[in-house]
Parts: sequence; C-alpha cells; structure tokens
Amino acid sequence: MDAAALWQRYQDWLYYHKGLEFYLDVSRMRFDDAFVAAMQPKFEKAFQDMAALEGGAIANPDENRMVGHYWLRNPDLAPTPQIKQDIVETIDKIESFVRKVHNGDIHPPSVPLFTDIISIGIGGSALGPQFVAEALAPDFPPLRIHFIDNSDPAGIDRILTKLKDRLGSTMVLSISKSGGTPEPRNGTIEVKTAYAAKNLDFSQYAVAITGVGSNLDKQARSEGWLATFPMEDWVGGRTSEMSAVGLLPAALQGIDIRAMLAGGKEMDDATRVPEIKNNPAALLALSWYFAGNGKGEKDMVVLPYKDSLLLFSRYLQQLVMESLGKEKDLKGNVVHQGIAVYGNKGSTDQHAYVQQLREGVPNFFATFIEVLEDRQGSSLEIEPGITSGDYLSGFLQGTRKALYENQRDSITLTIAEVNARTVGALIALYDRAVGLYGFLVNINAYHQPGVEAGKKAAAAILDLQQRVMQVLKHEPAPISLTHLAEKAGASDEIEAIYKILRHIAANRRGLVLQGNPSQPTSLTVSAN
Amino acid sequence: MDAAALWQRYQDWLYYHKGLEFYLDVSRMRFDDAFVAAMQPKFEKAFQDMAALEGGAIANPDENRMVGHYWLRNPDLAPTPQIKQDIVETIDKIESFVRKVHNGDIHPPSVPLFTDIISIGIGGSALGPQFVAEALAPDFPPLRIHFIDNSDPAGIDRILTKLKDRLGSTMVLSISKSGGTPEPRNGTIEVKTAYAAKNLDFSQYAVAITGVGSNLDKQARSEGWLATFPMEDWVGGRTSEMSAVGLLPAALQGIDIRAMLAGGKEMDDATRVPEIKNNPAALLALSWYFAGNGKGEKDMVVLPYKDSLLLFSRYLQQLVMESLGKEKDLKGNVVHQGIAVYGNKGSTDQHAYVQQLREGVPNFFATFIEVLEDRQGSSLEIEPGITSGDYLSGFLQGTRKALYENQRDSITLTIAEVNARTVGALIALYDRAVGLYGFLVNINAYHQPGVEAGKKAAAAILDLQQRVMQVLKHEPAPISLTHLAEKAGASDEIEAIYKILRHIAANRRGLVLQGNPSQPTSLTVSAN
Repeated sequence: MDAAALWQRYQDWLYYHKGLEFYLDVSRMRFDDAFVAAMQPKFEKAFQDMAALEGGAIANPDENRMVGHYWLRNPDLAPTPQIKQDIVETIDKIESFVRKVHNGDIHPPSVPLFTDIISIGIGGSALGPQFVAEALAPDFPPLRIHFIDNSDPAGIDRILTKLKDRLGSTMVLSISKSGGTPEPRNGTIEVKTAYAAKNLDFSQYAVAITGVGSNLDKQARSEGWLATFPMEDWVGGRTSEMSAVGLLPAALQGIDIRAMLAGGKEMDDATRVPEIKNNPAALLALSWYFAGNGKGEKDMVVLPYKDSLLLFSRYLQQLVMESLGKEKDLKGNVVHQGIAVYGNKGSTDQHAYVQQLREGVPNFFATFIEVLEDRQGSSLEIEPGITSGDYLSGFLQGTRKALYENQRDSITLTIAEVNARTVGALIALYDRAVGLYGFLVNINAYHQPGVEAGKKAAAAILDLQQRVMQVLKHEPAPISLTHLAEKAGASDEIEAIYKILRHIAANRRGLVLQGNPSQPTSLTVSAN
Repeated sequence: MDAAALWQRYQDWLYYHKGLEFYLDVSRMRFDDAFVAAMQPKFEKAFQDMAALEGGAIANPDENRMVGHYWLRNPDLAPTPQIKQDIVETIDKIESFVRKVHNGDIHPPSVPLFTDIISIGIGGSALGPQFVAEALAPDFPPLRIHFIDNSDPAGIDRILTKLKDRLGSTMVLSISKSGGTPEPRNGTIEVKTAYAAKNLDFSQYAVAITGVGSNLDKQARSEGWLATFPMEDWVGGRTSEMSAVGLLPAALQGIDIRAMLAGGKEMDDATRVPEIKNNPAALLALSWYFAGNGKGEKDMVVLPYKDSLLLFSRYLQQLVMESLGKEKDLKGNVVHQGIAVYGNKGSTDQHAYVQQLREGVPNFFATFIEVLEDRQGSSLEIEPGITSGDYLSGFLQGTRKALYENQRDSITLTIAEVNARTVGALIALYDRAVGLYGFLVNINAYHQPGVEAGKKAAAAILDLQQRVMQVLKHEPAPISLTHLAEKAGASDEIEAIYKILRHIAANRRGLVLQGNPSQPTSLTVSAN
C-alpha cells in the first residue's frame, strides 16, 4: 500500500470521540472490506447479545448470574429499582466515609488521621486498584496505599515491616467476595495478628469490601469493624473496578471517582452503538478477531507510552485472558479460546523486547497507547525545538512504523491526558471489547472454571499435608518416602509428599529429611 | 503416564546443585529419549561454541565484539591480563566508593549522608538493577533507589516531585554505554535542570556508568562528577547486571555484591559441564527447544511464587527476547526466531490468567520458581498445622499439576531462599541457557539490530518535526496538512506530520490546529 493509500486508510478508519478527546486507529490492522463484511452478521448478533446482557439477562449461564458492571456507571440502566438504589447508595456511602476519613471524623484510636492503607485482595480485587493507584494517585495522597495481593509470608512481612512505625495510622481494606478465597483471608489473618502484636485493636482499623452475608461480612459486623461495603453478586472480580472494590481505595487516595464513573459512562454510551465503524469497542474486537483468526493465534502486546499507565497491561491481562481463555464454547464444543496479553510501557520496552517484535516470531499484534499531554506545565528543550516528550512521541511513531513495515500489525489508542475520566473510559472500552469478542466467539466471558480447578488441586495438597503430618507424628523412627506415602494411603502421591516435606523441613518446622537430596528415594523423614 | 512412571521420570531428570541448594525439574516437559538423542549433536556443538565464546572468540560477529559477561564472575577466565585487572579493579573501586558513601566520607555538599538514588538508564541499565533492588534490597536500605527508565516527562516529574524535599541528599546515577541513547540522556538533562532549579551543584551528586571515552564519560570528567565507572565493550546491556551497571546500585543499597558474584560463578561452573543432563542451563535450553519446536512456537510464562521475584520475568523478557528474537540466522537465512516471555508472580497470577493457561489457547509452557523458605522467622498457623506459606506452596503444586493434566508442560526451579547468592545464580543460569539456545538455533544472541532500526525511525520523525516547524514559522496564514507536507518536502509523510502537530498542539507549544479532529484532512495549522 503506497503512502497516499495508507493515509486514506488511516482517515477512513479513524474513530474519534469528541467528548472524551479519544482516538482509535485500526488502520495498521491489515483486514480488508471482505473481512469486515463477513464479520457483519456476527457483530449484529453480538450487539444484540450485549443489549440483552445490559438489560439483565443471565449472561453468565454457568453461574446463573446477571452481568451488571455497566450499571455501576449508569444506575438508570439497572434492571430493578432495588439494584439502582443499591448502586447509588453505595457510591454515596463511599463518599461520605471518605470525607470523614479525610477530615478526621473517622480516625485511628490514638492519632487524628489515617495516613496509609493496606489493601488486601487478589485478582480483580487488586489489579484494578493497583492500576488506578499507579495511574491516578496524586504524588502526595491523603492516604498512601500498599497492596498485599498474595499468600507470600515474606511479601506480607515486607509491607508490615516498612509500615511498622505507621501501623497505628494505617487502615486495612480486606477485599473478598466470599471471604473464603485463601490469599486475602490469609493476608487478613496475618495483618490482624501483626496489629494485635502492637496492641492495636484491629477492628478500629479494618474495613471489609465483601458480599452481603459472606463470612467476611459476618466477621466484620460481629467484630465491629470501621465499615463494610458491598460486592454485588452481579459484578465479576475482573470488572469490579467501578464498584466499591475500586472506588473506595481510589477515593481514599484522593482520586475523583465521579469523574472515573463519568468517563466510563461516556465510553459505555459510545460502545453501545451497533455499528462496527462507529463503535471503538467493536473496532477493537474486530481487530483482535482478525489478528488471531478468531482463535487467539496472536498475542496482544500492550504498550502505553506513559509511565503512569504501566499497570494497564497487567489489568488487561486478567480482563482479557480470564474472560476469553476458555476450554468450551457456549454449545459445549471444545475450542481452547483466549488471547495472551503482555506488555509494560514504551519506550522502555523498546529496549527490552521490541527487537523480537520487529524481527522475530510474528506471533503477536501490538496495541500502542499514546497520551498527548507530556506533563503538567512546560518542557525544557533537549535540543532546539525538541523536548523529552517529542522523543517519546517519536519513539511511538517510529516503532509503529518499523513494525508495520515488517508486516506486524498494530492498533493505536490516543487520549489527551491520563486523568480519572480517561482512565474510566479505557476501563469501559476494554470491558465492552472483551464482552463483544466473547459473543463473537460464542464463549461465556464471565466465569472462570479453571481457577476453581486450581483451588481444588491446591486444597488436595494441603489435605495431603495434614494426613502425612498425622502419620509422621506417630512414627518412632525415620521412614522412607515410599513407606510414608503408603501409610498415608497416598502411594500415587509420593512426589507431592516429597515436595510438602521438603518445604516444611526448609522452614524448620519439626521435620528432618536425611539422605541425598538429588535422589529423593534415598531420603528418610522423621518428626523431631 | 501413571503415577509411578511419572515419579520415576521426576527422579531421572531431577537436577540438584548441592552448593547452591538449587533444584531443576524438567520432568513435566513431555520430551522422550529419542528427542534428547536427536538433540545431542546440536548440544555438542553448542558446548564447543560456548567454550570458544568464554575463551574470548568474537561471538558477536556483526559488531565484531567479544562476549565477556562470564568473566565478570570469574576474572581468571578473562582472555587478557588487562581485562582481568580491569574487572578486579572495578569491583574494588565500587566497594571503596560505596564504603565512603555509607560512612559519609563522600557526602552531598550540605548534608552528612546521601539518602536516595535516582538511577537513570533503560533496557539492560534498568531491568537488572530494578529486579535486584526488588529482590534483595533491605527494607530500610542505606540509600533508597528510584528509577527513571523512560523519556516520559510526567514520569520524570513524578520522581522529582516525590523527592523534592530530599533532592539535596539524592545521588544520581547516569547509566549509558555510549552516552547517546536518548532516554538516559534526556533523563539526565531533565534531572540536572531540576537540581539547578534548586541551586544544587549537580556535579556533586552525579555519577556516570559509561563506556570509557564516551560522551557521557567526557561530560562527567569535564564537569567534575563524583565518580565514573566503566561499561566494558565486551559486556552487552542485557547481561550487564554483574558489571558496574548492576553492582554499583546494588552495593549502594546494601546488597552483598560479592555473594551475588559468587552465586553467579558457582552457577557458571555448573553450566559449563558439557552434558545435557548434568547442566541446568542445557536442560532449560533443551526444554525450550522442545516446547517451541526450536522456533519459538510456545510462549514462556514465568511464575515465581515469591513477591520479591516479581520483576524476574521482566528481566528475562529482555534477556530472552532481545537475545533470541532475530530475523536471520548466522548463515543469513530468514528464520524469525525468538521466544515470547511474560509473567508476574504466583499465586497472584492464578487469579489473573491461569484460567487461560489451564483451559485456553495451548500456546505456552510455564516456568515455576519455588522458594523453599517462606519468611525469616516462624509463621503463625492459619489453620491447625497450616501456614500462609503452605498455601503458597500448595498453589504452586496444584497449578503445576492442573496444567500438566491438561497437556500444558512446565519447568520448575527451586531455590532455598532469595538472597544475593541465589539471585546471582539465577541470572547466570539464564545467561547461559539463552547463550546455549542461541547456538542451538544458530543465531547471534548478542546483537540487537532491530533496536537500531527503531531508533532510526524515531530520529526520522524528530527530523521531520524540525522541518515542519521550520516551514510553519514562515507561514503567515493557516495551512492544510497536505500543503504543509508539500512545503516540507514530505508529501508521503502526511500522517506522521499530522501526529507531530497534534502532539505539539496538545502541549500548547505555539501551534493551533483548527477543523474537525475526526477528519484530519479538514485541519489547518498555524503557528501563533
């Protein structure tokens, strides 16, 4: 395609949203008109399915749930007056709570103001809040946030140690829909114990964000925690950033949550248009489908050229992969769907892996995110007429061009600046694009059966640990792994037992392994 | 394969290094003996090539360079006495400098001690130091490090704003081999200007790590910076963590660099063994080759189950992708090689994208990294006999098993704990595995021609900006993009010009764009 034709293609496909000052360019995805025409019927059905979903249909049939995250940004869309009222009241409650925290009406027992937050949550209860904190928190926020998003003891200790002198002014958010997910439950127990060790009354620092009636909800109420906020049944973890899960930590950090919601609503309105060319989410879904042949054959590399958007790709990794990575379609056919997502930021990643993108395995398409505003205030000139921001802008253009010339396709999003409104819009845009793509390939984008499978496999390991330790307690002399497995009724699980024992022994918890570590069968174990 | 056979396979392939307490398990990669036998001749050649490389052969023919990062960990291997002496003296110089910084012999003009570091570098000058800081820095390091690893004005401002009250005690490391890479050069100019704005004499805070005789080296000497440290010609950016690039910031943070080097050396010794089964780097390269059919057909998903190793996958992303992602092999055949790498940490990522890994597109293999020590000190019990660390361990085992049962292969590395020695060993292990794999697929793993291409494309954009602005300066009235492009002699570059202008106008730098933003051809531009 010559320069003139490419410029024409750029203009033909350019999407612009005036209110949001948002551009989407899919001109460097090499689909042709025949492809778009062939996709038209699929999109018509997807638009209808999406309308039904927004109207409150059971869009997550496996779990028999409505999918309502769009209502959070526009409560008028909620299918019942009760749901609408719940949404409105939760936002009001968040704002009222945050106001009191900021002005000291709600404060820790012995100091006038909260200074920090420990946010305990995993998956959707961490990735959205982390992305938004990195993108939008002021340099000196009223409360500084720290995340415990794992069950790693050393990771928990690091946070608690760094905060040791401020624990008395640190609020704890415990975020878990059921209250039963092990990582946040373990984190909450560890943190609560650390507060107790400092003679701090945990209930005076703790806030729960959880499903109404969950175990965590009951615990928070019975122990008299500072507050509880709801996680609605009809909001999935990976689309919960605009529920209390995301809004409460954002507001506590001084982020304008009304602007985030407004940006999301505006993008929701724009992505409801049932015409591919006039709907940026449809343009994304179309491009993804084209790139990967509707089967995820290409990875999605996400490159925001802006430090503050570093965590957007991690956020999208969950949103896209957990939503679309499914074994079966809605008819029960085995399809092994999904799109792999990775990326950090430009131009940084140009010095990491753009070498491979440009020259190596052509197994990806890129998504560039451009931010027009370089910084607040003016820039110095590095060379006459050229700023650091010009370089950043030039790197984006240059890389996009270099990739295209090597037959590597890309999408480019452009926003005027990173603020609460545009971040809300980006979240809404991808929510919708993922939903539409899910309908295009006919999968349930709103469940995650594979996560359950992993939890069960882990629970089986912990159960095995209990059984093995029980046997060992009554063994008078060192015993071989094979013999131990037999006694525990788990002869098929010797390897798992070996690993359990190796882990416990390494933590000096009353087990001794003897023998040659390079030959596990030579090992004997005893409780000491 | 039944449980007994799998347990046998596990033991047959288990690699254990006693000194490093390091295990490598490739039993869940489904290669058979015939595959290993077929790979044997390729490995024999790779071992020979690697020995020649370590002996000082020109292993990077395009750039006519030796590849000497192994010498950094064992200067006795250096091919000349001069190189050996340079390595030894640099380490001594780092330690001597750091001692003086820590004890205050070297201090900022008006305070007794340095408290912080701004480290300015990109690619290999950032990813290694960032990984090591996250993995090894003490909770309260003698100097806290902050990274500028981009040319993003807002990102630079964020660091400078957060440090505004401590700039007078903040050391600046400017890291760039040539001194000409735009991102670190821009960052250094921006930071220097910020120091000047606070009436701080930048030269009393600045340290250069750069090639001897580079522009940066000359600047540092002529301006009388605190110190300069060398970047050797024979160390590539992505393997420079054990040169001054990585060692100086590590030592300043109180990290034991001698232990890091010792761990690297010990792993180097182990990965020099010319037998696949007794060489952990060869086992990795074998597994990668098997997974991706020697063509990178599968992505490498890296999952350390330990918060402090979060950035290891970003480090590996560069090391693997920039080394292996090549268009041509050494014979000049077009091969489009590479292996895509992504990942963050477990169990966190189980709640992000393990859904897709388990059920979705089977386009990857996983690498689990297990750390046996949960934390320093003892753990509380979450349930009788069960700790947070047991959960983390169970999640790893459960996920590995769940993936394997769904025909997804994985590798598992196990280390006793995260410390300077094991981190040095991990770095050395992957250095060697990447080198061996490069020889297996016959590519130059030590150059990065695609990065140069991107830089040139960006330079062309900046040049175009200069030309366009020159034209506009003399235009008395608003002018269309088409007309402007003609006048700038760049009619084929209208789209690039449009983007340049949009960026400049958005930053209020004396340009006005008028018309309908959704129709670029309708726009006119004028300098005001």
